[in-house]
Amino acid sequence: MECEEGLVPRGGGGKRAGRWRRALRRRLPVLRWLPRYDRVSAVADLVAGVTLGLTLVPQSIAYASLANLPVQYGLYSSFIGTMMYVLLGTVKEVSIGPTSLMALFTLQVCRGLPVEFVVLLTFLSGCVVLAMGLLRLGFLVELISPSVTSGFTSATAVIIVAAQLKGLLGLSFTAETVVENIRCIVAKWDDIRYADAALGAVCCSVLLLLRKVKDIPVSEKRGRLRRALWLLSISRNALVVLAASSFAYLTHHPNQPLFKLSGRVEPGLPSLAPPPFSAAVDNSTVHFVDMVQQLGSAVLMLPVVMVLANIAIAKAFCAGGRVDATQEMVTLGLCNMAGSLVHAMPTCGAFTRSAVSHASGVRTPAAGLYSGIITLLALIFLTQYFYFIPKACLSAVLICAVVFMVDVSAVRELWRRDRAELCVLALTFGVSVARTVELAVLAGALGSLAVLLRQLMRPALSATTLKTEAGSALVVHAGAGLVYVNAERVTRRVLALAGAGPRAVLLDCGALALLDHAAMQALERLAAALAAAGQRLVPYNVSADLLHKYEQLAGVERRAAGPRAGRRAGRRAPQSAPRAPLAAAEAAALLHR
Amino acid sequence: MECEEGLVPRGGGGKRAGRWRRALRRRLPVLRWLPRYDRVSAVADLVAGVTLGLTLVPQSIAYASLANLPVQYGLYSSFIGTMMYVLLGTVKEVSIGPTSLMALFTLQVCRGLPVEFVVLLTFLSGCVVLAMGLLRLGFLVELISPSVTSGFTSATAVIIVAAQLKGLLGLSFTAETVVENIRCIVAKWDDIRYADAALGAVCCSVLLLLRKVKDIPVSEKRGRLRRALWLLSISRNALVVLAASSFAYLTHHPNQPLFKLSGRVEPGLPSLAPPPFSAAVDNSTVHFVDMVQQLGSAVLMLPVVMVLANIAIAKAFCAGGRVDATQEMVTLGLCNMAGSLVHAMPTCGAFTRSAVSHASGVRTPAAGLYSGIITLLALIFLTQYFYFIPKACLSAVLICAVVFMVDVSAVRELWRRDRAELCVLALTFGVSVARTVELAVLAGALGSLAVLLRQLMRPALSATTLKTEAGSALVVHAGAGLVYVNAERVTRRVLALAGAGPRAVLLDCGALALLDHAAMQALERLAAALAAAGQRLVPYNVSADLLHKYEQLAGVERRAAGPRAGRRAGRRAPQSAPRAPLAAAEAAALLHR
Repeated sequence: MECEEGLVPRGGGGKRAGRWRRALRRRLPVLRWLPRYDRVSAVADLVAGVTLGLTLVPQSIAYASLANLPVQYGLYSSFIGTMMYVLLGTVKEVSIGPTSLMALFTLQVCRGLPVEFVVLLTFLSGCVVLAMGLLRLGFLVELISPSVTSGFTSATAVIIVAAQLKGLLGLSFTAETVVENIRCIVAKWDDIRYADAALGAVCCSVLLLLRKVKDIPVSEKRGRLRRALWLLSISRNALVVLAASSFAYLTHHPNQPLFKLSGRVEPGLPSLAPPPFSAAVDNSTVHFVDMVQQLGSAVLMLPVVMVLANIAIAKAFCAGGRVDATQEMVTLGLCNMAGSLVHAMPTCGAFTRSAVSHASGVRTPAAGLYSGIITLLALIFLTQYFYFIPKACLSAVLICAVVFMVDVSAVRELWRRDRAELCVLALTFGVSVARTVELAVLAGALGSLAVLLRQLMRPALSATTLKTEAGSALVVHAGAGLVYVNAERVTRRVLALAGAGPRAVLLDCGALALLDHAAMQALERLAAALAAAGQRLVPYNVSADLLHKYEQLAGVERRAAGPRAGRRAGRRAPQSAPRAPLAAAEAAALLHR
Repeated sequence: MECEEGLVPRGGGGKRAGRWRRALRRRLPVLRWLPRYDRVSAVADLVAGVTLGLTLVPQSIAYASLANLPVQYGLYSSFIGTMMYVLLGTVKEVSIGPTSLMALFTLQVCRGLPVEFVVLLTFLSGCVVLAMGLLRLGFLVELISPSVTSGFTSATAVIIVAAQLKGLLGLSFTAETVVENIRCIVAKWDDIRYADAALGAVCCSVLLLLRKVKDIPVSEKRGRLRRALWLLSISRNALVVLAASSFAYLTHHPNQPLFKLSGRVEPGLPSLAPPPFSAAVDNSTVHFVDMVQQLGSAVLMLPVVMVLANIAIAKAFCAGGRVDATQEMVTLGLCNMAGSLVHAMPTCGAFTRSAVSHASGVRTPAAGLYSGIITLLALIFLTQYFYFIPKACLSAVLICAVVFMVDVSAVRELWRRDRAELCVLALTFGVSVARTVELAVLAGALGSLAVLLRQLMRPALSATTLKTEAGSALVVHAGAGLVYVNAERVTRRVLALAGAGPRAVLLDCGALALLDHAAMQALERLAAALAAAGQRLVPYNVSADLLHKYEQLAGVERRAAGPRAGRRAGRRAPQSAPRAPLAAAEAAALLHR
């Protein structure tokens, strides 16, 4: 129902009407499942939606505080995306809202800038993602290799833990990098507030314990206990925040609060307003162009990361990875554009929440409606109590949410299998930690590209010498393809291999999937150089694809093979199926022509 | 004698002594040819060297004026490189000295800066080229595709012609771009000096005529006339400069010169001085770091272009393209570093001069010695007469030298064969003309990379359905390789092709030259997705290379094939020879296991 294969058109209606209906169903996926929505699904979605809401509310508050925004902005960012996804989303588990990555990005890009910049970033990111969807630029995401993703995800976790330690310990300072954070903590060691540190430690311990509670082996019979434990585990964030806040409320003393608290929160729903195209900084007005300049390349990089995260999650939860990437991008773009109308920070799907949805037995995207309503209720009725949420508790929620994102298994795996990719991972991680995630994604993408280019530049080249009745021949198989980055090297090596020995060089073009103009020219130069030494270049196994693209190659083959073979080459099957190893007799036949 | 194959060691001496001697001969190629140097070679080199000198002197003067330097700097730049190449060079035809490309680069990078910047650029470029040689970074040059080279070469010609038109017409103004130049010429149309314009026109006509003179059909018998015509053609630059200067000298009137002249030239040899690590700009001293910052990325891009040009020329004249690229880079680096001691501008091999050397029957690099001596003689005895060289004449020499560099045939060829590469050429050309050659090379390299990536991202995928006794199977051949940029797309397409039909997907790994970790993970996800639909993924034709790199793949194959086949896979030949198309019986066997 939720994935692309659900798009198979059903008969009825004229051809044009059918096409329109199909397009509408494709772009408004709610039409696919709503007609078949029943009571069983509704109950399942209600349970899943409420459970999700219990995760969404505390997470949103924590991510807002991570991004250095007043906590209500987290909730502003949660309900629009979650509710719009009901109409537009294709993957039932995805929950659009603030995420650790988005919050960290926002923090790094908008540090020290007024909240208008954050909202503008949300709007512009939404526009870019929408444009990527409409222009089918989703392939850009494929330039970010899994090692890069793994690198910056792990780095995100490390950065967030480092940044939240101060909250956990009740310290206040401004530090940008991981190193600065640690240095400041060491320097301010004596200022640690023990009440906050104790609360933080308790919260962390409880969260980690509750995380494990659902794995307690309970016999199949005691289903109700099992379900209770699971619910306890899933709603641990909400429970811990509730408990800590209650404790803070009960022990509250206006002049000397025991804990550092979140402080005054704007109550009620956000006002509806167009995205801010100007902002006040230091008593002067900054206009749109200057704001965009200030945001810089983040306006392009954030959307790419957003799409990457969202599609990765969608793929993980959609059987067989059959995700309608275009629809996901359009939806994500619209969610963010709409979010900017209610002062949202940038949002995308969150892996943790999607896992909660999945575990809660979600049936359709309608679950988002219920969690959205919970967020709205929290905004209307609970904001006054947010004052009492201890900062140490929020830091504990964040730390426990991200600490498992450190991807040690990928490092171990790459160490065994692909050291070059491991370097890319390390580069991405290092740049993330030392500079920004934005720069790291770029550096990692370039690093992966360099690894790929290195492979392309040094293609495997195997050569065998065949003795035939017409003299000896060197049979050369070039791997992958001949392109401008390796053509010179390959022809140089072929020349060296040929030496003054064989009468001819037989070049196997069977596995040659790539061949560009520069390589073609290099082959012509190779033929000329061989001819100067009285040797011949005979391409064979040339597929019709290559023949079609490069009549030149056909020319070389035809010249080498005579008119008879030329005609044969023209009649070849269009598909380059692998052929049998060249026998001496065949080689001799090639040479004889 | 001149190419790498001349390096075959000759017996005698201990093993270590032999290795040392070989290394020395490799790095000091003069040792290879000097012992065998004879009178015949000496005479041939003398003739070629003098002929080359007659081209080198006027070209050097013209290129200095193109770079906006006093004309003597052209000669300062010519003799050191030419003479050092005698000792270190491997290709007898190459003539190191100022070139149009180097002059244009110098002009664009050092516009409005004192000459110290030019000399520092020479020194730093030399250092970078030397480092590239020693660190074997020559492969960087392979990232610049032939279309890029063609694009910026053509653009160079267009830019130089546009910049020299003002000299040809006797106009004076400062303009940076082609468009500005043309706009200024139109604006100042009434200020055209008719004497200069007439002289320019005459010089151009004579140069173009003399260029054709050597092609006049003369019967074999009249060898002397033929040789005289050829010499006339080859030395046309020197003749035209000489004639124009003499005319200017004879008609000279101190108060009202008929032509715009080159003006006062510093006589004599340049003083020997270390490269300038500071310079005076606007009455203040600029230090090394600021100078380097001012030169910017040119310090890295100029060397790459230098090496590119030099190796291209070396390859063109060295039979079979067997060039010792490392030695060429070391030599070029040292030539420029030494050049900076005598105030040289950046230098590299020039195609026009190499062609002259070749046509003059050069035998060894010793010819450079004679052309170097001619340059020195010109510096010592002729500088006082350089005052009288008309600027229009130098412009004519430049225009006639570069106008044939516009590479229309490449455009025609690419139009027929490779439109994507044509776009890269156009991009490079456009950026060169609109901005700088430096930026254009970078943009072109990225453009070529994008074209290559596009090919990699959309690999050819052919699939056939085979009916076997064990049920139907989909046989998939993936071209080129599975890497992170295309793995997702390929697996998605395979899933779509598989649909709910066949029992298994047989993946032909025979032509799979590239396979990275991300692709491996995608294959595992594909296997899982297929398994969910009750289908199997069976990789076959897995080469030992791939097996070695990815035991996982072996695992998948082994799981699919049972223990018997697993052992067989381990025993496979290390080379991935093409195999016969899969027969139904074989496919059935694969499925049965």
